[in-house]
Amino acid sequence: MLFTKSFSILPALQISIQPSLMHSPPLSPQLLNSLTPEENTQCQHGLYFQDGEKRVDYILTYHIKKPSSSRSNRQSSLFTDNAFTRSFRRGTARLGRPPPPQPRGDPEVASQDHSMDYHEDDKRFRREEFEGNLRDMGLELEKDEDTKTPGVGFVKIHAPWHVLCREAEFMKLKMPTKKVTIKSFGVGAKINTLVNKATEPLHPNVEENRAQNVKHLSYAFSREKQHFLLGSGVYTAAYPLHDVSTHCNQHLLYEEWASYSVFYKYQPIGLVRKYFGEKIGLYFAWLGLYTQMLIPASLVGVIVFLYGCATVDNNIPSMEICHPRNNITMCPLCDRACNYWKLKEACGTARASHLFDNPATVFFSIFMALWAAMFMEHWKRRQMRLNYEWDLTGFEEEEVSDHPRAEYELCVMQKSLKKEHKTQKVLIAYCLIAVTSFQIGVTFAIVFGVILYRISITAALHMSNNPTTRSNVRLMVKTTAAIINLVVILILDEVYGAVARWLTVLEVPKTDKSFEERLIFKTFILKFVNAFTPIIYIAFFRGRLVGRPGSYLYVFESYRLEECAHGGCLMELCIQLSITMLGKQLIQNNLFEIGIPKLKKLIRYIKSKRRSFQEEEREKKLQRYETDHFLEPFAGLTPEYMEMIIQFGFVTLFVASFPLAPLFALLNNIIEIRLDAKKFVAELRRPVAARAKDIGIWYNLLRGVAKVAVIINAFVISFTSDFIPRLVYQYMYSPDGSMHGFVNHTMSYFNVSDFQDGKEPMDPQHLGYQVEMCRYKDYREPPWSNTPYVVSKEFWAVLAARLAFVIVFQNVVMLMSDIVDWLIPDIPKDISLQIHKEKILMVELFMKEEQGKMQFIDSMTPCHGKERNNHAPIARSRSIPHTHSHTHANNF
Amino acid sequence: MLFTKSFSILPALQISIQPSLMHSPPLSPQLLNSLTPEENTQCQHGLYFQDGEKRVDYILTYHIKKPSSSRSNRQSSLFTDNAFTRSFRRGTARLGRPPPPQPRGDPEVASQDHSMDYHEDDKRFRREEFEGNLRDMGLELEKDEDTKTPGVGFVKIHAPWHVLCREAEFMKLKMPTKKVTIKSFGVGAKINTLVNKATEPLHPNVEENRAQNVKHLSYAFSREKQHFLLGSGVYTAAYPLHDVSTHCNQHLLYEEWASYSVFYKYQPIGLVRKYFGEKIGLYFAWLGLYTQMLIPASLVGVIVFLYGCATVDNNIPSMEICHPRNNITMCPLCDRACNYWKLKEACGTARASHLFDNPATVFFSIFMALWAAMFMEHWKRRQMRLNYEWDLTGFEEEEVSDHPRAEYELCVMQKSLKKEHKTQKVLIAYCLIAVTSFQIGVTFAIVFGVILYRISITAALHMSNNPTTRSNVRLMVKTTAAIINLVVILILDEVYGAVARWLTVLEVPKTDKSFEERLIFKTFILKFVNAFTPIIYIAFFRGRLVGRPGSYLYVFESYRLEECAHGGCLMELCIQLSITMLGKQLIQNNLFEIGIPKLKKLIRYIKSKRRSFQEEEREKKLQRYETDHFLEPFAGLTPEYMEMIIQFGFVTLFVASFPLAPLFALLNNIIEIRLDAKKFVAELRRPVAARAKDIGIWYNLLRGVAKVAVIINAFVISFTSDFIPRLVYQYMYSPDGSMHGFVNHTMSYFNVSDFQDGKEPMDPQHLGYQVEMCRYKDYREPPWSNTPYVVSKEFWAVLAARLAFVIVFQNVVMLMSDIVDWLIPDIPKDISLQIHKEKILMVELFMKEEQGKMQFIDSMTPCHGKERNNHAPIARSRSIPHTHSHTHANNF
Repeated sequence: MLFTKSFSILPALQISIQPSLMHSPPLSPQLLNSLTPEENTQCQHGLYFQDGEKRVDYILTYHIKKPSSSRSNRQSSLFTDNAFTRSFRRGTARLGRPPPPQPRGDPEVASQDHSMDYHEDDKRFRREEFEGNLRDMGLELEKDEDTKTPGVGFVKIHAPWHVLCREAEFMKLKMPTKKVTIKSFGVGAKINTLVNKATEPLHPNVEENRAQNVKHLSYAFSREKQHFLLGSGVYTAAYPLHDVSTHCNQHLLYEEWASYSVFYKYQPIGLVRKYFGEKIGLYFAWLGLYTQMLIPASLVGVIVFLYGCATVDNNIPSMEICHPRNNITMCPLCDRACNYWKLKEACGTARASHLFDNPATVFFSIFMALWAAMFMEHWKRRQMRLNYEWDLTGFEEEEVSDHPRAEYELCVMQKSLKKEHKTQKVLIAYCLIAVTSFQIGVTFAIVFGVILYRISITAALHMSNNPTTRSNVRLMVKTTAAIINLVVILILDEVYGAVARWLTVLEVPKTDKSFEERLIFKTFILKFVNAFTPIIYIAFFRGRLVGRPGSYLYVFESYRLEECAHGGCLMELCIQLSITMLGKQLIQNNLFEIGIPKLKKLIRYIKSKRRSFQEEEREKKLQRYETDHFLEPFAGLTPEYMEMIIQFGFVTLFVASFPLAPLFALLNNIIEIRLDAKKFVAELRRPVAARAKDIGIWYNLLRGVAKVAVIINAFVISFTSDFIPRLVYQYMYSPDGSMHGFVNHTMSYFNVSDFQDGKEPMDPQHLGYQVEMCRYKDYREPPWSNTPYVVSKEFWAVLAARLAFVIVFQNVVMLMSDIVDWLIPDIPKDISLQIHKEKILMVELFMKEEQGKMQFIDSMTPCHGKERNNHAPIARSRSIPHTHSHTHANNF
Repeated sequence: MLFTKSFSILPALQISIQPSLMHSPPLSPQLLNSLTPEENTQCQHGLYFQDGEKRVDYILTYHIKKPSSSRSNRQSSLFTDNAFTRSFRRGTARLGRPPPPQPRGDPEVASQDHSMDYHEDDKRFRREEFEGNLRDMGLELEKDEDTKTPGVGFVKIHAPWHVLCREAEFMKLKMPTKKVTIKSFGVGAKINTLVNKATEPLHPNVEENRAQNVKHLSYAFSREKQHFLLGSGVYTAAYPLHDVSTHCNQHLLYEEWASYSVFYKYQPIGLVRKYFGEKIGLYFAWLGLYTQMLIPASLVGVIVFLYGCATVDNNIPSMEICHPRNNITMCPLCDRACNYWKLKEACGTARASHLFDNPATVFFSIFMALWAAMFMEHWKRRQMRLNYEWDLTGFEEEEVSDHPRAEYELCVMQKSLKKEHKTQKVLIAYCLIAVTSFQIGVTFAIVFGVILYRISITAALHMSNNPTTRSNVRLMVKTTAAIINLVVILILDEVYGAVARWLTVLEVPKTDKSFEERLIFKTFILKFVNAFTPIIYIAFFRGRLVGRPGSYLYVFESYRLEECAHGGCLMELCIQLSITMLGKQLIQNNLFEIGIPKLKKLIRYIKSKRRSFQEEEREKKLQRYETDHFLEPFAGLTPEYMEMIIQFGFVTLFVASFPLAPLFALLNNIIEIRLDAKKFVAELRRPVAARAKDIGIWYNLLRGVAKVAVIINAFVISFTSDFIPRLVYQYMYSPDGSMHGFVNHTMSYFNVSDFQDGKEPMDPQHLGYQVEMCRYKDYREPPWSNTPYVVSKEFWAVLAARLAFVIVFQNVVMLMSDIVDWLIPDIPKDISLQIHKEKILMVELFMKEEQGKMQFIDSMTPCHGKERNNHAPIARSRSIPHTHSHTHANNF
């Protein structure tokens, strides 16, 4: 039953043949093979079958269980034999002649000598049947169980030309028929040439044409089958090989892509796509565009920040606070433990706040919302251009991944209960909600813990008498609290990744694509909430609902919500943001991404070393497929994208409070591109090349983040910053239209005689004089009004203004984003022009062909009907190579 | 030069062949023709060439200028000849045998006898060259200048089978290869069967299978060429014929589609699409879905309205106003002319307002926002389903319309100035903005005029003493004002349509598609603004900024902004909405749409009658292409869509104030579908069948309207209705949490001694007692406060609540719409399943074919290479009919 299943999947096997392959004369295996030995001389062994002609396109590995007694001598004897034949082959290969095929005994027979338990026998049987099916499909297999990696058997798979052609037809791969050069004239073209010349040093030294001779035949099994067979333990690993011919070009990839010294250059995306397939190519193209787009954003951000620095001395509110004659006595910030204090103490914070809380930040957050819209549009265009250049315009995504997942089928087989599945789905939905709420709870608990830490430290510090130490230590407390937060976020991040996977596995989605999308969605939700909850707390909840002096609000009778320093919570938000962002990037991305794979590789290497013999010799003479076996398997692009989308969140969501975020992101990404490149080229097993037309769900998530960013920025500007109160004061209350008196206006009066018992400060004489009336930052009625201490009319006016700003900001920015979306066409003009012209050329070509055909029919009418029935199906299914050779014939 | 251009366009000629055509054995003209005479017997003449075999696929008409002296006798002599041959042919056709081809002299030679001026000669030359090119393309032409329509020459065009096949291949038309029946089991399928049985009477009595024998060969010229030749006067009209075979099925279309008696049935969309092409089919499918979706919306709307009716007696605020012991004296509503009045007078309005201003309307506007999102999603799904059923899944829109427009080419030829074009574009953008502002100005001016009318009438009425007359007449004034507004809107609508066209023509867009889109966009903007400006004025501007008693605000010193009646402006908004909507639908849609085409047809008929001879006889024996010539040419779907999208605006934009809008729209649309159907079947020349995958820009406009609807409804609920003030009172100010005292709370006090000179009422004793303190509806400080008459804290609190509601409403509804968008997959599950299964079947079929091929190659290897080079191109380009006949052969 299992095998009828796997057989039914077989027709849908996918091959990723690069179009460049099609450039070489296709139906001449002689030509193909004559190239092979030459390449072989330059490159490593193990890339070809024993006959030296057939290329290894894919590797399956499995576990061989042999009695330990006979293993050692068998291995060693076989090793010498192998080493000999191999060196012989290498020698003949250097002479430019393929070595004769080596007649060898079936290794399967050898392994059958030993007794095996039933389980192993069953697995072997499955393997044999599966391999039989593969051969039926036209694939050629070769087994190698006598490698220097004991206990691991390798199945080398070669896909012959006719199989590739068949699969190419099923996949509707596009084929070059005729070269089209479309010239552009006019001033625009000249400017283009100039720009190209000017940006010459930015382009990588890769001749894209040179890559046309590179044959890249990664034979991609549909992944669900991999899981199916890998999951049941029949095979242990499945991967294509790191390509020799490209590996020889790996100098190119190493030097022009995976190297920090070329950080200022564009990526050789064409080469990346040729080597790793479209899916990974798209990731790097996206990452490249994102990094590129960050350059203007960080420039503007730096300018905004510098504007804040330049105007800090002209800022009237902070000048008023810092004025030496300013003598305002402030109310204690907590009951009993805190004392009266002078507003002058807040001078430093007020000045620092101005750096991030000035009119330029409003402009900047509008700019960044439009920037995000622009980025989306540019990505759509870039994607379209790549689709055109990579000949994906006709490719339909859905072919790749509509097969049910192996796990799903297994699950259905095991349970065969549709109903249970449905109720389970509902359960899982509840589960996700529960986990998310729990998570938000946990995050808040942690935030609360950090608050506790801060409160206790701050309260202890308030006992001290030196005001400068106090304000310094306050900053230190904030910083350490943010670091604690960061560490917690990093730990929880890993936990939530596991939770998301567990939930998705519980859900048993039907297809691989839906599994991936659901997993991504869940992981995104959990990680996003995890990263941004503390920041949202600081931005929107800290400092609200604190009560007023004399009746501060308490949670659980003893802990009260924190207040922000004078000058808004923006400063603290900024510290939290920068530490989280920098920390996440430095620790998670760089430490984890570089460190952990290296560690894993080391562990795997040591493990296999322990089991192996003759280590030093073997190391040098490992077959290509054996060295690849020691590399870390490719785990998908999800972590890479996830990291970037969280970063995109930092760049857009709270950009109003931290204009330097794009700069930090830019610096990180310049390293990130080369880091990822290195990882892909050298640290990982070669990923199965997968075709993809777009970046899938990630685009939707990006759009979602950009949408949320608009509303969050609106709230940050209107509620977290003092922008709106300043405006309201200036236009409604200021006597002379200036900001003079703003600080006084934002502070209410409190009569110290209204302190309830036990709430007055322990040391009322702390400032050296008797305080009768103190001030606090809030819009409340003064003690002498009819309704003392209730919120005043100014409060409601400012609130209305804040809310109005949110509405206006949100709708204006959304409208502008829509206009950007509408103004920038999704398909670049030159591409649509080129597609159109190619279509016309195609039509003309076929018209000529048809005219020839008509004449042909006229001359051959009698035998036509008969011929047609015989030859039509052949000619039809082979039409791609035919037409190709036909047009080629025209060229020569 | 003109003709090389037209030649280069020729290869892109498009043919819309219906897939049903492909069902008939294609490569046997004998079979095809053997069917023809049978059909011919049933149907009208003029549908075939003179030989009775070749079908007329397309008609070109041109103007013939003949000296009037020789015309009459020539005509009559030719007429008898024609009548004879025709009746002869008809006779023979009835016998089931095609008539022999009639050898006839070239009519072009006959017309050359007469002297013509240079201009006519040039046109004739162009026609000849163009027709020569058409013949080169493989088309067959026949001329008929001797019709009974004097002065009009007809060119009948027939597209032979091989041309159709070639074009079908260029267009990548899909072809049925094998019948696939996918059965569904389980409970779901059973329910489906039951549902199908239950809805049986709703389906039209059309056997879709029966239509398979209908051949529909409308040969669609690319429209730009039409313009090109029609625009330069070479030809006067170009249209395909109303199809005979379908015309014989026209009973079906008439009875099952274009009839009011089947209003409750689904439309036979498949048949409509067969007859009119995909573009018009999509319009009717869209209209049908929209009408269907209106059913639940109008149901809920009626329920909401009934809820309002049922609760009007329990509504505390209106009870308080109408309470007999209510003795509140209200301030005069205008200076001097108006008097004090009793709040009790507003009882009727307050009760009526409750019908549209109750908590259910809030629910309803959320419901309608989600309804709009649902409608969009359902349309996407329906469109996908139709794409699948109509085999459009692989079709790429852009092929149709990327050719530059003829006008554009002419313009470029004439001016050949690219720069000027660019500056002109900028100019036109400014122009559009100017026109829109001007238009808004005009609309406001008209609104202002209507206001003036109302104010003067109202002021005059206020002089009268009878309070009940006054309140009745007030309503009358509102209604007449709304009617005046409506008439102005209707007139301006036509004006703006012309303005939009003029602006777009000025712009000279490059392609036909962009021309259409720009025109639609401009027309939409102008008509939308025109329709909704008065309504927006009433909803958001009337009643604001009126000032207060004693200092009412004046514009231009003498006119003041109107106030709304007590109970909000919602009532007036409702009247304005219902009158505009009903009036627009009744007058514009039905009167204009039915009346004007009939009138035009009559005029055209009378005109041609005046010029013609032997009228009575000719009328009965007109060729099909002549009767079609008298029909109104098809003017595109733009007016139909535009009408519907404005209606969609009425249904969604202000639904919070008028829950009956969906019901009115539903009633209108039930008529509209059948009306449009009648128009298309009988009143218009047959439109050129155009392929389309979607409804294009209209979908974006619908989305835009749905988006705007969310924010407008948020504002209507929070600012136009009293919903928020009621909530604020209930939760912030009410002593017992009930609504008692709300009316009192919303009214401020005014001390009559504060009236400035000349502003107090002329008749202070009007109510029979001396007024010292009057009330007015506003949140202002009382006269005894420190700051009398400035806005109070309550005002700001209510404003903040209103704004907060807008933010919450907008974001919640947008989020819910996004979730709806996300939850409903764009492709229906059964369709995606079917597509997937078909793909697998296809792959299996080709796999079998390939296995056969492999065996074939093995057996024929030596001669393979040679054969390939000779036959490949033929077999390739003819592959569609080949495979078809191949699979057919398998079936027999």
